[in-house]
Amino acid sequence: MALTPSPLAYVPFVSVANMMKLVHHVGIETFLLELTDAMEADFRRWESFDKTPRLAAHSEEGVIELMPTSDGEFYGFKYVNGHPKNIKEGLQTVTAFGLLASVGTGYPILLSEMTVLTALRTAAMSALAARHLAPEGAACMAMIGNGAQAEFQALAMKAVCGIDTVRLYDIDRAATDKVLRNLDGLDLNLVACDTAQEAMEGAQIVTTCTADKQFATILTDNMVGAGVHLNAVGGDCPGKTELHRDILMRSDIFVEYPEQTRIEGEIQQLDPDHPVTELWQVITGAKPGRTGPGQVTLFDSVGFAIEDFTALCYVRDRLEGTDLYEKLDLLADPDEPRDLFGMLLRAAP
Amino acid sequence: MALTPSPLAYVPFVSVANMMKLVHHVGIETFLLELTDAMEADFRRWESFDKTPRLAAHSEEGVIELMPTSDGEFYGFKYVNGHPKNIKEGLQTVTAFGLLASVGTGYPILLSEMTVLTALRTAAMSALAARHLAPEGAACMAMIGNGAQAEFQALAMKAVCGIDTVRLYDIDRAATDKVLRNLDGLDLNLVACDTAQEAMEGAQIVTTCTADKQFATILTDNMVGAGVHLNAVGGDCPGKTELHRDILMRSDIFVEYPEQTRIEGEIQQLDPDHPVTELWQVITGAKPGRTGPGQVTLFDSVGFAIEDFTALCYVRDRLEGTDLYEKLDLLADPDEPRDLFGMLLRAAP
Repeated sequence: MALTPSPLAYVPFVSVANMMKLVHHVGIETFLLELTDAMEADFRRWESFDKTPRLAAHSEEGVIELMPTSDGEFYGFKYVNGHPKNIKEGLQTVTAFGLLASVGTGYPILLSEMTVLTALRTAAMSALAARHLAPEGAACMAMIGNGAQAEFQALAMKAVCGIDTVRLYDIDRAATDKVLRNLDGLDLNLVACDTAQEAMEGAQIVTTCTADKQFATILTDNMVGAGVHLNAVGGDCPGKTELHRDILMRSDIFVEYPEQTRIEGEIQQLDPDHPVTELWQVITGAKPGRTGPGQVTLFDSVGFAIEDFTALCYVRDRLEGTDLYEKLDLLADPDEPRDLFGMLLRAAP
Repeated sequence: MALTPSPLAYVPFVSVANMMKLVHHVGIETFLLELTDAMEADFRRWESFDKTPRLAAHSEEGVIELMPTSDGEFYGFKYVNGHPKNIKEGLQTVTAFGLLASVGTGYPILLSEMTVLTALRTAAMSALAARHLAPEGAACMAMIGNGAQAEFQALAMKAVCGIDTVRLYDIDRAATDKVLRNLDGLDLNLVACDTAQEAMEGAQIVTTCTADKQFATILTDNMVGAGVHLNAVGGDCPGKTELHRDILMRSDIFVEYPEQTRIEGEIQQLDPDHPVTELWQVITGAKPGRTGPGQVTLFDSVGFAIEDFTALCYVRDRLEGTDLYEKLDLLADPDEPRDLFGMLLRAAP
């Protein structure tokens, strides 16, 4: 007795291999669209979540973060790192995994890889903001920075906002070529550009996603025309920004969670009381989003725990009826809860 | 190519079954003694750790906590819940798992169950405090509360401090009987008692470990004689205490991390500036521990992240040369770090 773990001891685990199978099982664009819709639903009930800035451990090389949240019924958190130098050593800049648990019992109910899932949810988040902020009929996006996020961003804007053209620029042409290869045959017009300025020509949506941990200026004010929706994804920790301050000054700025964005986002360059609008309030209709065709809107995206929570819940729901998970012997579950030591004794060889 | 995860994508995982095998491979008492020594070594370099109070999500039913720390080279965190009501539903009050990662790359290097490991490290922590605070030649301990921690506490005090007798009390006699069964044949004199007062007769070390989430009074002042070392394990979150305030007033109080203990420990009953001594300073010799045979010392144990960090590092070291772990496909690791989407594409069925 008690030599094999009880069913309560097992936590469903989604490996990277199974996450990729799940994405193909659902379809990449359908996955992105459904995830965007799920995120919109959770943003509508924003006030029902416990919110706290992420807990970050900074080092010279990068940052390791824990991002927890809860809606009172479920608790979720993500472990995620950001190490820009990793790429030079053949490692991912960002890796992540996450967990869902029951608030009522504290028992974990899902452990999942979140490197692939974070890429998907970050793109879905951008698409959700663009759905509410981009100019009507936006058909062309510029993608500045053609790293690991680029294809996900492009496909999410296609699936959710209906864009048909992506203009690509990266300081490393090999990165752009990678995107050209990967998106070939996915029903998008792809235009490789030699400068960021060229990439932005005719684009109604401009997404920046570069990885340097330093105050960078990927875009300057003269490059941004009227009516554009800017989606700044790469500036996401102290000291890491992409846009010139002048762009911020003439944009209407939308954020996920101001307490976190003021520390980590593009707006760390601005006064701490510079007006910003919380995106959830645009989605519920409490605050205006885009108010005219000439307005420059900026979504200062840093990534918030609720988005990961949504993604984990979406994966949990989508796993049902599949065998795309393993069962992990993560929790000790003795026959008699107080008899943990007895369980250990009985496991003696 | 890239259809099977690369070696970098794998994270060693210690399941509950493997943790129990590891404990028996090392020997329970040797494990507790070595873990206590490892903890003492880390307490000596206390100042080299990043310290932050745990991040707690409280609900009516219990609490879910994340406990991170880092020594600059490695980063560790534990997920742990505390749900006193669980026991009535046949669930564990406390379950936990933890992770070690490299600060330099942010990559996880060990994922481990920590329900069993937390029980071991909590007992090792008590033994470490008693090693420095208990009266010389202490041979008898009282164990008040005979739940999941009881046997671990008793064996750690035996292995580290050399006690030979354990006097047991629990409001539920069945819990005491469980301890009697489990510790039978492990070379300890076991005495079942009908009251807490009776259990404390002749004991130089008194450990309380009860689980009610309410201001309880397991011990009152008249029960505590001169020269005793008290080890209060069960009071570990706001509203959860075990000792009458009067006991605290006549004890010299030792804590792990005051910022956390003042919120969670027995001393939440005292003024926020009531003097306490940090245990690491006793261990380094910077502050006095026990100064005389009549003194009542109290270790107000709440559990701190550094102890879990030590435990994870100890397990990592002890795993070497064994096959007591699995390899978990937790991290996406594309051939080319920027080509996450390409990896996803190539995983298409």
